[in-house]
Amino acid sequence: MVGRLFQPALYMVGVLLIILGIAMAVPAAVDAFVSNPDWRVFVASACFTLAVGGGLLLGNRSRQFVLTLRQTFLVTTLSWLMLTAFAALPFAFSTLDLDYTDAFFEAMSGVTTTGSTVIVGLDGLPPGLLLWRSILQWLGGIGIIGMSIAVLPFLRVGGMQLFRTESSDTLEKAVPRSKQLVGGITVIYALMTLLAATCLSMAGMTGFEAVCHAMTAISTGGYSTSDGSIGHFDSPPIEIIIIVVMIAGSLPFALYVRAVRGETAPLLADPQVRLFLGVCAGATIALALWQSVMLNTDGSTALLQAAFNVVSIVTTTGYATTDYQLWGNFAATLILFLTFIGGCTGSTAGGIKLFRFQVLFGTVRVQILRLLKPNAILSTRFAGKPIPEGVVSSVMAFFFATIAVVTVAAFALSAFGLDPTTSLSGAVTALMNVGPGLGPIIGPAGNFAPLPDGAKWILSFAMLLGRLEIFTVLVLFVPQFWKD
Amino acid sequence: MVGRLFQPALYMVGVLLIILGIAMAVPAAVDAFVSNPDWRVFVASACFTLAVGGGLLLGNRSRQFVLTLRQTFLVTTLSWLMLTAFAALPFAFSTLDLDYTDAFFEAMSGVTTTGSTVIVGLDGLPPGLLLWRSILQWLGGIGIIGMSIAVLPFLRVGGMQLFRTESSDTLEKAVPRSKQLVGGITVIYALMTLLAATCLSMAGMTGFEAVCHAMTAISTGGYSTSDGSIGHFDSPPIEIIIIVVMIAGSLPFALYVRAVRGETAPLLADPQVRLFLGVCAGATIALALWQSVMLNTDGSTALLQAAFNVVSIVTTTGYATTDYQLWGNFAATLILFLTFIGGCTGSTAGGIKLFRFQVLFGTVRVQILRLLKPNAILSTRFAGKPIPEGVVSSVMAFFFATIAVVTVAAFALSAFGLDPTTSLSGAVTALMNVGPGLGPIIGPAGNFAPLPDGAKWILSFAMLLGRLEIFTVLVLFVPQFWKD
Repeated sequence: MVGRLFQPALYMVGVLLIILGIAMAVPAAVDAFVSNPDWRVFVASACFTLAVGGGLLLGNRSRQFVLTLRQTFLVTTLSWLMLTAFAALPFAFSTLDLDYTDAFFEAMSGVTTTGSTVIVGLDGLPPGLLLWRSILQWLGGIGIIGMSIAVLPFLRVGGMQLFRTESSDTLEKAVPRSKQLVGGITVIYALMTLLAATCLSMAGMTGFEAVCHAMTAISTGGYSTSDGSIGHFDSPPIEIIIIVVMIAGSLPFALYVRAVRGETAPLLADPQVRLFLGVCAGATIALALWQSVMLNTDGSTALLQAAFNVVSIVTTTGYATTDYQLWGNFAATLILFLTFIGGCTGSTAGGIKLFRFQVLFGTVRVQILRLLKPNAILSTRFAGKPIPEGVVSSVMAFFFATIAVVTVAAFALSAFGLDPTTSLSGAVTALMNVGPGLGPIIGPAGNFAPLPDGAKWILSFAMLLGRLEIFTVLVLFVPQFWKD
Repeated sequence: MVGRLFQPALYMVGVLLIILGIAMAVPAAVDAFVSNPDWRVFVASACFTLAVGGGLLLGNRSRQFVLTLRQTFLVTTLSWLMLTAFAALPFAFSTLDLDYTDAFFEAMSGVTTTGSTVIVGLDGLPPGLLLWRSILQWLGGIGIIGMSIAVLPFLRVGGMQLFRTESSDTLEKAVPRSKQLVGGITVIYALMTLLAATCLSMAGMTGFEAVCHAMTAISTGGYSTSDGSIGHFDSPPIEIIIIVVMIAGSLPFALYVRAVRGETAPLLADPQVRLFLGVCAGATIALALWQSVMLNTDGSTALLQAAFNVVSIVTTTGYATTDYQLWGNFAATLILFLTFIGGCTGSTAGGIKLFRFQVLFGTVRVQILRLLKPNAILSTRFAGKPIPEGVVSSVMAFFFATIAVVTVAAFALSAFGLDPTTSLSGAVTALMNVGPGLGPIIGPAGNFAPLPDGAKWILSFAMLLGRLEIFTVLVLFVPQFWKD
């Protein structure tokens, strides 16, 4: 029974491992080109990954191409987990010589596009490893877009059923349709990356830096080639380009496809997009005013610094140009709350996501109005349409689950001796797939390396939970899942 | 129109102010007995309060005794606000000479049974003021019990409609019924206070200290007669008595009435009561183990310290015996999360309250099961019965509103320059009506006096919001409330 459940899941994992193995050839080639001995590690990792992937593929062939609901849940979590386990190999066996906990953390932070790092001394790292980190985020980014269009709405996770395309109500019908859409999105994603890399190199980055940062900006991942992150380049044009790319990565990619076909109205009128841009602008203005009034920062510097760091956090990218903790308590608290928000659904961004806040605030409004008129029929609305009660409950339960997971994770981290600020901000930044936390250790100028191993495993698990919208993973822990 | 809306509300406020004015006679008598000049301040405050109360009573007489829904909302918030404004008078005009911000904060912290204080040097304070602080909490405690039985279930605030008595579905029918119940509860409340005071004086407190602490323990308020709080007495028997009294104050008082009538089963079988005791026991054991293993504290000391401080926080009392922040990060984080929980509905305790967590976790469970079986009919259950969908939404919206208010309040506090730990824990402890926060300023060994005035007004408002279950107050800010 359980074997039947696993068979198609393992088949899919096989397919994905083969893609991962092929991707490993890129850093192998680069390292070979610069004669760095790590190329052998990449080749060996690729061979091993391809062998396991091929084995899973051949061993689990089946005529069954339509997955059941349970199999879809299983394949989702299992594939993300297995990809991470194999993606960690180059970190563990290269000249970097990370232990497997660190390697797994770095890989998980990569594929979930979180961007927290345990590697100190990025500036001196061989190009293969730097490229590998960027590739993981880039693949993770397109992976999550595809999943949030083709899979999650049908899993009804956290209110995602709101984003089912109207004409397709079942998983069977939707997959082929969404395959076409995801194909279009992949092309746009690749072209955007290319464009970003071109702009960045014109603004002064080397070609290698430009490619790496283009990949980690469009995927809202945030891995950099320097310990100083984007601050290393100290270049306003680069910062402005990165701001634009991060925002581009946080909008619903399906709307780009329609925009390319000439329908730009949906992109401009989308309620998530408008709220997202409004939140970015509002927080930027607040923070810029704060800096210029309270800290006497020059106006244009304050604006650029505020914009870059606000966008970096809200888009869940996590690049830094400066340690915003030095801007005082107001800034630190603002950043902590921004960490929860996230981008639009159907993008590479993490976080709770804006449509959920729209549903939540709408529900509170309806609840208050209902207090006044107990018998009135009122329903929460999204994009002008009433939302079914089932979606509202899903979203509200998702919010509670988010807070509950943050609580449990922060609590577990504190049991490893971390202070409350590090525990809480660490749990939030991992679950929201943002990257930096607050406090002296994991702040924007810090690094996750000094944390104890147990904390790294907790954070890795939180990243996975966050990336897969929590419920997709939690459902596997319910005994009913494993009963026939 | 608006006049008609206010008339019965002002009448009710008049009644309550007369009760408050009469209560001021008690500290006046005590201060007169010890020849402290403050007795004149209490007499003057009492006369002024009685005069205003009498004026409101006479000026707003009406034949209308049944309040509309809107009038009930208005009277609830207005009466709590007006009582606080008048209760603050003795603090402002006595020898203590607080400015009105501090006096209002202290009074609000009293009537909402929060227990945060801005007074330093309690040990040297005249008895009248100490007694006044205790009386405010004692009155606030019975006030909230009455409200949560007679008013809130009919206002349908935050899922409180779950606690409507079955036989009474309308406000008109329920008020006379609940009047009888509240009468019985008041007797039990008074007897419990008397019993607690007797036990405390037998355990070594002076009669005055025993009465003051009995009143602030049963009301889960937490005002003490010493800056050292209960730690001042350094007496395990006193601590054990206080633990029992705090727990007694956090259980549903309606069940005591039934227990007195011979029906003890409902009290023992109540799901809220069981979860409450379970949370207290679990957290105590975790904290005691932590202390004895990590800090090598003697076993029985660790157990008593853990039990006292866990119960003090979970019951939202806020007494301290020691600065638990010295127990390390695990303890501080645990305490922060415990601050949210609260006691049972229908008690004097604040917090989110246990039935809401039961509904929330039940809903998450149902959501996860629904992922597996999209067409199954599943509903969240409480005390063995399915909960109507409306209640579930109410509770979930309440939870989101709680987090949103904490966020806004913490954010506003940080704009006054407070550090993230103080801002966040301050917002939480005020909204949950607990008392102490975390950090060097407002921690259990600290005091709210050093905070800027703006922060004190924000915290006062948060206490009011928390005590009235948030929505009762928020509804007044909706334009529809003021339209006919």
